[in-house]
Amino acid sequence: MGTFALPPGFRFHPTDEELIFNYLKVKLKNGLKASEVEVIPDVDLYRCEPWDLPEKSFLPNTDMEWYFFSPRDRKYPNGSRTNRATEAGYWKATGRDRKVYSLASTIGIKKTLVFYRGRAPQGERTDWVMHEYRLEENECEAGPCLQM
Amino acid sequence: MGTFALPPGFRFHPTDEELIFNYLKVKLKNGLKASEVEVIPDVDLYRCEPWDLPEKSFLPNTDMEWYFFSPRDRKYPNGSRTNRATEAGYWKATGRDRKVYSLASTIGIKKTLVFYRGRAPQGERTDWVMHEYRLEENECEAGPCLQM
Repeated sequence: MGTFALPPGFRFHPTDEELIFNYLKVKLKNGLKASEVEVIPDVDLYRCEPWDLPEKSFLPNTDMEWYFFSPRDRKYPNGSRTNRATEAGYWKATGRDRKVYSLASTIGIKKTLVFYRGRAPQGERTDWVMHEYRLEENECEAGPCLQM
Repeated sequence: MGTFALPPGFRFHPTDEELIFNYLKVKLKNGLKASEVEVIPDVDLYRCEPWDLPEKSFLPNTDMEWYFFSPRDRKYPNGSRTNRATEAGYWKATGRDRKVYSLASTIGIKKTLVFYRGRAPQGERTDWVMHEYRLEENECEAGPCLQM
């Protein structure tokens, strides 16, 4: 799939609310197949190194930001911990998770992670940052929560 | 002409360079008629009050920013000073004009103005701000420079 062409000056600059409400939620419900322009590709983020991700984006990368849907890779088959290691390093959370609101109610959670090369706890911090969005548990009735 | 519909998360967030290079320059050259999506309407900014402008925009105003092409209204037929008065007030420059670059060369000038109600110098400052872009003189071979 090639890169998405936009007229000059147009960018994909979604708010946190739009990402969760118009993309993640719709994706979980109907796969974003027919109802929406397919602007966010499915990529397993933990099978890729961050520097390999930009070329997988559908949108041009003028702002050095890329958007993906990614399945959760659970550490243990029945556990809820997410495996955040790649071959070359690992993603580690930074700061606190933040709630994403739509009007007055929480619709999702935004977590920020930084990529470290190597293995914890000796990894070397890099400039790669990921903002992961997931739905609030009670918004997520069936199937795995997908992340971006 | 109605409002332009964009998929969720897409916005018109042009850089200064894109505004001058992809819109103002193209507009002066061929009128933006066939080659570009017509996203920026022609409005005479000095025949409108700022609060009447949002409804004249083609793009949805999620960011409280609106884009227009406007002819220069010269104060005197042969002079170069621009008339910046409206019926209810006037636009007054604030800060210094800034150059807009494309690669290493100046392609235009960005001027910031604030709207005052009433007549100078007794006008009352408002929160309406305009960023005016014009082409560099040597980029502007024929016809009036249009502003945004």
